[in-house]
Amino acid sequence: MIFSELRKRAKKAGQPPGTPIYTGKKNNIAPRVTVIQYSVDDYHESTGTMIENPAQKETGITWINVEGLQDIGLIEQIAKEYHLHPLTVEDILNVEQRPKVEEFEGYIFITLKLLVWNPEKYSFYMEQLSLVLGERVVLSFQENALDIFNNIRKRLNGESGQRLREQGSDYLAYRLIDAAVDQYFVVLEGLGDKIERIEERIIAAPTPQNSRTLYRLKRQLLGLRKAIWPVREAISHLMQAEGKLVLPSTRVYLRDVYDHAIQAIDTLEIFRDMLSGMLDMYLSSLTNRMNEIMKVLTIIATIFIPITFIASVFGMNFTYMPELHWHWGYHVALGSMFLTVLAMLFYFRRKKWL
Amino acid sequence: MIFSELRKRAKKAGQPPGTPIYTGKKNNIAPRVTVIQYSVDDYHESTGTMIENPAQKETGITWINVEGLQDIGLIEQIAKEYHLHPLTVEDILNVEQRPKVEEFEGYIFITLKLLVWNPEKYSFYMEQLSLVLGERVVLSFQENALDIFNNIRKRLNGESGQRLREQGSDYLAYRLIDAAVDQYFVVLEGLGDKIERIEERIIAAPTPQNSRTLYRLKRQLLGLRKAIWPVREAISHLMQAEGKLVLPSTRVYLRDVYDHAIQAIDTLEIFRDMLSGMLDMYLSSLTNRMNEIMKVLTIIATIFIPITFIASVFGMNFTYMPELHWHWGYHVALGSMFLTVLAMLFYFRRKKWL
Amino acid sequence: MIFSELRKRAKKAGQPPGTPIYTGKKNNIAPRVTVIQYSVDDYHESTGTMIENPAQKETGITWINVEGLQDIGLIEQIAKEYHLHPLTVEDILNVEQRPKVEEFEGYIFITLKLLVWNPEKYSFYMEQLSLVLGERVVLSFQENALDIFNNIRKRLNGESGQRLREQGSDYLAYRLIDAAVDQYFVVLEGLGDKIERIEERIIAAPTPQNSRTLYRLKRQLLGLRKAIWPVREAISHLMQAEGKLVLPSTRVYLRDVYDHAIQAIDTLEIFRDMLSGMLDMYLSSLTNRMNEIMKVLTIIATIFIPITFIASVFGMNFTYMPELHWHWGYHVALGSMFLTVLAMLFYFRRKKWL
Amino acid sequence: MIFSELRKRAKKAGQPPGTPIYTGKKNNIAPRVTVIQYSVDDYHESTGTMIENPAQKETGITWINVEGLQDIGLIEQIAKEYHLHPLTVEDILNVEQRPKVEEFEGYIFITLKLLVWNPEKYSFYMEQLSLVLGERVVLSFQENALDIFNNIRKRLNGESGQRLREQGSDYLAYRLIDAAVDQYFVVLEGLGDKIERIEERIIAAPTPQNSRTLYRLKRQLLGLRKAIWPVREAISHLMQAEGKLVLPSTRVYLRDVYDHAIQAIDTLEIFRDMLSGMLDMYLSSLTNRMNEIMKVLTIIATIFIPITFIASVFGMNFTYMPELHWHWGYHVALGSMFLTVLAMLFYFRRKKWL
Amino acid sequence: MIFSELRKRAKKAGQPPGTPIYTGKKNNIAPRVTVIQYSVDDYHESTGTMIENPAQKETGITWINVEGLQDIGLIEQIAKEYHLHPLTVEDILNVEQRPKVEEFEGYIFITLKLLVWNPEKYSFYMEQLSLVLGERVVLSFQENALDIFNNIRKRLNGESGQRLREQGSDYLAYRLIDAAVDQYFVVLEGLGDKIERIEERIIAAPTPQNSRTLYRLKRQLLGLRKAIWPVREAISHLMQAEGKLVLPSTRVYLRDVYDHAIQAIDTLEIFRDMLSGMLDMYLSSLTNRMNEIMKVLTIIATIFIPITFIASVFGMNFTYMPELHWHWGYHVALGSMFLTVLAMLFYFRRKKWL
Repeated sequence: MIFSELRKRAKKAGQPPGTPIYTGKKNNIAPRVTVIQYSVDDYHESTGTMIENPAQKETGITWINVEGLQDIGLIEQIAKEYHLHPLTVEDILNVEQRPKVEEFEGYIFITLKLLVWNPEKYSFYMEQLSLVLGERVVLSFQENALDIFNNIRKRLNGESGQRLREQGSDYLAYRLIDAAVDQYFVVLEGLGDKIERIEERIIAAPTPQNSRTLYRLKRQLLGLRKAIWPVREAISHLMQAEGKLVLPSTRVYLRDVYDHAIQAIDTLEIFRDMLSGMLDMYLSSLTNRMNEIMKVLTIIATIFIPITFIASVFGMNFTYMPELHWHWGYHVALGSMFLTVLAMLFYFRRKKWL
Repeated sequence: MIFSELRKRAKKAGQPPGTPIYTGKKNNIAPRVTVIQYSVDDYHESTGTMIENPAQKETGITWINVEGLQDIGLIEQIAKEYHLHPLTVEDILNVEQRPKVEEFEGYIFITLKLLVWNPEKYSFYMEQLSLVLGERVVLSFQENALDIFNNIRKRLNGESGQRLREQGSDYLAYRLIDAAVDQYFVVLEGLGDKIERIEERIIAAPTPQNSRTLYRLKRQLLGLRKAIWPVREAISHLMQAEGKLVLPSTRVYLRDVYDHAIQAIDTLEIFRDMLSGMLDMYLSSLTNRMNEIMKVLTIIATIFIPITFIASVFGMNFTYMPELHWHWGYHVALGSMFLTVLAMLFYFRRKKWL
Repeated sequence: MIFSELRKRAKKAGQPPGTPIYTGKKNNIAPRVTVIQYSVDDYHESTGTMIENPAQKETGITWINVEGLQDIGLIEQIAKEYHLHPLTVEDILNVEQRPKVEEFEGYIFITLKLLVWNPEKYSFYMEQLSLVLGERVVLSFQENALDIFNNIRKRLNGESGQRLREQGSDYLAYRLIDAAVDQYFVVLEGLGDKIERIEERIIAAPTPQNSRTLYRLKRQLLGLRKAIWPVREAISHLMQAEGKLVLPSTRVYLRDVYDHAIQAIDTLEIFRDMLSGMLDMYLSSLTNRMNEIMKVLTIIATIFIPITFIASVFGMNFTYMPELHWHWGYHVALGSMFLTVLAMLFYFRRKKWL
Repeated sequence: MIFSELRKRAKKAGQPPGTPIYTGKKNNIAPRVTVIQYSVDDYHESTGTMIENPAQKETGITWINVEGLQDIGLIEQIAKEYHLHPLTVEDILNVEQRPKVEEFEGYIFITLKLLVWNPEKYSFYMEQLSLVLGERVVLSFQENALDIFNNIRKRLNGESGQRLREQGSDYLAYRLIDAAVDQYFVVLEGLGDKIERIEERIIAAPTPQNSRTLYRLKRQLLGLRKAIWPVREAISHLMQAEGKLVLPSTRVYLRDVYDHAIQAIDTLEIFRDMLSGMLDMYLSSLTNRMNEIMKVLTIIATIFIPITFIASVFGMNFTYMPELHWHWGYHVALGSMFLTVLAMLFYFRRKKWL
Repeated sequence: MIFSELRKRAKKAGQPPGTPIYTGKKNNIAPRVTVIQYSVDDYHESTGTMIENPAQKETGITWINVEGLQDIGLIEQIAKEYHLHPLTVEDILNVEQRPKVEEFEGYIFITLKLLVWNPEKYSFYMEQLSLVLGERVVLSFQENALDIFNNIRKRLNGESGQRLREQGSDYLAYRLIDAAVDQYFVVLEGLGDKIERIEERIIAAPTPQNSRTLYRLKRQLLGLRKAIWPVREAISHLMQAEGKLVLPSTRVYLRDVYDHAIQAIDTLEIFRDMLSGMLDMYLSSLTNRMNEIMKVLTIIATIFIPITFIASVFGMNFTYMPELHWHWGYHVALGSMFLTVLAMLFYFRRKKWL
């Protein structure tokens, strides 16, 4: 994940700023543009692959949601329509952006990561979400069609959505951000499950592949961290935005998302600490295991090597070995071997090895 | 603890903000509402499962303590009565909240963790405490009936409580916070006992399960940390609250709780450092133990392998082996074995292995 | 040290704030109160177990030094006399306080740790020092009678003390703090000696008990850290105290103690880093030692196992083994053993194991 | 890299400040000076080894790019022409500078590192870039001729460059900085490739040289860090520069480079964390490998040592050993050996070693 | 270094502040006082062991350089002459000072460490440099006669020094600080050489003494750190000094030394990181080496133990062992041994141990 990002980013090197280059994965799906216009008691939605000149109403709010960023022409058309700065267009298309909030003349630009948990693969992937918050307009740009904003759209259309329709565009933007941040907890829960499972396995019996699993988890946390950490600062920036785009009544809600972002970060840090604790536990398990192996070897060797020596002595072929001809010689030899074994066992017991 | 929290939190994902969802454990116990109204020389207390329209007196302070958060209707009724913001209601019910202080119009919302030490299980559990501090009113919400505030209630009712009754609602809120923070030290003491015990055990003789115990303690400290760290910031925020809800005379007391929170954090960090020190000690003990095992094996093997070789040589069946027929051959062989052993012992002594 | 503190602290849980409870060790020695009143050319000192109504002179400074905090009545009497806040009384008696400086109306409350080095036990212990700096009055409270302030008392009384007598109560408080902080260096020197000694021992030859000693030192540093770190902040707070209790001329001197506190902290951190460096050195010594042991075993085993095998072959009892009947068979066997040994020695030399 | 820098830096010790000394590598290539003068619809470029008195036009911007810093006289001539402070001249020539931005009277001095990836050697090297931003003038100084600014020069000259030519000198300086920072991602991508490759190798099978490779990578990251970290602060400083040299419209673009710098730093920190994770994985692999080796030895030894002992017993030459003469003696001996082996195998299976 | 400092510092404990005690090493060399008075076109220098009443000229700057601090009387005489605060005198004599800048009435007191590299011993030592910057006067105090300021003195006297003579006393103080900080790079270069050498040795072949060398280097870096870190803050303090002692034109130069101090700190931190990386590399080398030793032992043992067993079997003395009398028995036995060896070799090859 980190490496592929870098590769895309490096390709942009040398291009003049504001050059619109799409750095994401290209596919054959045409972009989908959803234009929603609503006021307190009005709702109109149209979907297409192009933006048609939306009749700007006197009142009400327009939300344009773009899914798929390959059609640079489309993005530039929207940019022109809403007077976006060239850097904003570049940032919308460069999907390796660091989460941030930037104020431009007439609008605020917000870029975040959407985290999507894949329950089959037991892994997650990232997409970029860019938001433009203008007066009475919100533009949202996603790489692929995700159903993350469906709930909000339904609510806007439904009866229970009156409160939502009464609010300004800043509240809508907040709701989109909130929906994105909420997904972080789904991903964190999924990773938490993975961590819990590997934890149980390490406690039960450590295997060589544990360290690789721990490393992979660590890498995933690093990727997550890169996506989540800057969100806190970005939202804080949004809360303190100058101008009248963000109303005081919305700031209370932003403070709430801000708290969620901190909670996600806290959880991430706890995961990191747990991974490092598990690694310590794993390493000490390995050493313990080696101690056990060595103990078995030492016990066996220490018992049998001396008595084998005794047997060897009496296996010598000297002509003059009086013991060989004693009547009880053989039994004395066996007895001395037995005593040696007893002595060794006693020694190991005292050492608490047995 | 951390994982179950995440699971609850993740379930809330996608819900619109301000949706009141109780994320704690559900049980069959009906919530208990205690309404206390007092002034300098007046005290009235009533307990029930519902809030009845409390006759708002001209003077005096009302304290409503709710134990059990399952009845969302009840919470919403209180919220309506005291004009609480929907986000506050959501935060009261979402018991996986990060400790924080938030100012709303007309009231300050405070949420903390109650830590309860279980001396039988030698462990602790967490509950959420939410406080609403309004003018002449304090609302407190707990998940379960804990007797943590009994002392304060008794004192309010008793004769010695005059000083307490003379103060405003902010002082009452302070007393509730203070009672909660005081419990942190009980939990820390319990954990300290556990740490001391494992410490002694590791110093005496390390066993494979030590590393697991250390890991579990580390996890408990991580959970504790998540609960205690943000308290400092929250109280600091409360001390600097604008408006006149927090009187200057109470700020002196808040500074005191603030100091206690820092002291708890300091202790937590010392525990962390001690655990990491113990892990180091444990790991080096393991290596020492392995050295010892290896030494025994090496000594035995190094002594017996050469003399067994000597015996083997004279066990060969060559027809022409003059030594075999010497009269003192056998004794020379035994003597050379004896000298070999002596040389080896001397060598080990010089190496300080014996 | 840390654990016993916690136990005392935990016992206070649930008590209302401002409850005067002595948390230190109780003994049978009666507290000693020393009342010193002085001006530029006047000095009067009286000692007792109680405070008598000290005739407040128009000019001059009063210093009341209390040694022994068991008599809560005595402390409360002084508190009443000098209008101390209940929280101050509680803090004076709770000897597990974190070092801090607090401004109250009419006075500044300062609490520090006195560190006393015990050269016999080669260890240190902590006591609490509480100071109350009022206009023309300084109150100092210690747990036990220590001679740490004797020098200052003598100087106040002596001729060379004129400069000291000319200054205000803030300068006297500074001198008491300075005397306390100076002792930190004595304790640090003692610990430094211990560290130097264990360092030499580890460099010479590591023993299993080294890791325990390192751990104990680490724990002592953690205790020290808890006592010294907050002092910096406390003195900084004192330097910036509002009101006119701390004169600008004294601030220069406080800056000096402030520098000393930082120097003590720096030294502490260097000690920590040295301990962790020593642990690394110790651990790598253990592994080196194991390598050496293994090398001895491997050399012996690798030399003798093959030649013992050769001997075993010629010890077989087959009827048809022509070599056994060769005239030089025995010598050839011995020769091949000798060559094997030579080859092995050559191999080890090339591996640089010999 | 770090060491050679230090050597150069140490040689400057003792020189008075402002002494112009070139600390880079000397070669025989003459410096190349490119003087570009342009306005919205005008472009003039001349190249030489000296700066000729450039006719300062009333309007338009002058960009002087110097490649090669050996000719101190040349640098001093330029410095005199543009009234540079002696410290600026010293900093331009001392190529071991820490990235920084300094405001002087009439100009802003910017110094950065150019990072150049060498795809053959799979490594990178650093050069210093110094910029002087004056009113309507930009001076840029590089150690060697790199084609990093070619794109900008072409664009200035070409038709698409009108927007660029319309902007002020601050925008040109921004473009140069942006081009330099863009190269950081090329270098990071190269290092990322290296890290990915070593990662795969460690996961497949750890070899002794892995730890050396990890160490070398760590050192490279340390060097990179030293070059990239200060850039963030420097650009932040530039954004807040007083005076009117940096126009508000350019600040938006600087914020963009600032974000890029942070992104580069984030990536660097992730690389560091990954390296440390890989080291942990590598070390635990080593221990695992040792466990495996030990297991093989222990299994072989534990199986054969006891049965060899049995054989030795029956190889003794006692006269009275009835078993030797039993008819089934030999088969009983072989059978008991076989049972011993079975018992051992059973034991190892239960221990999960087989 | 650290320990001897502590010992000196601890001896001062209990002394009243401002007591002049020399804490450095005492020797028999008399202090040398150099009084230099200069203006733009005037220079006068006199050297002695005492300060004579220097005729304070109307214009020009006086620089008094004292080498050797044993003569407390001399220091106090100078202090009286220039109205130094008792704490300044104490700090000049206490050579275990932390680098700092303090503003007093009429002068600024600066104290730094002089680091001197000893190329023979391949080590460095520290001395204290104290500077007093007054209006038109600079006092400098060193423990021993070092030639570090000779260049500045020569320049002041020479023709090229006109610029230097034109500046104020603050510029002279800057030059002295700059000369001191420049030496840090000489010491860092020396240490860098040491680090590079040990690095090469560890990469080539790790020896047990490597860890000791690493530890000693770490200790040296800790000492260096203590001397260099505070310099940054001190110079920053000096740059922001109130009053008119530091002219704006000099602040530009101070910013330059400030940058040098940061560069020295950066290098120090890189050294620390490199040492820790080398320790990791060293430890993994040890484990690798042990793996190799174990592999040799295991291969030898695993090959010879089974075939020795075969030989033992045929060395048994049973009466009825038909194999012994087979004609090809001996060759079959040898053949089976050979096959066993082949199988083992095949197994080791597959395990990649050979």
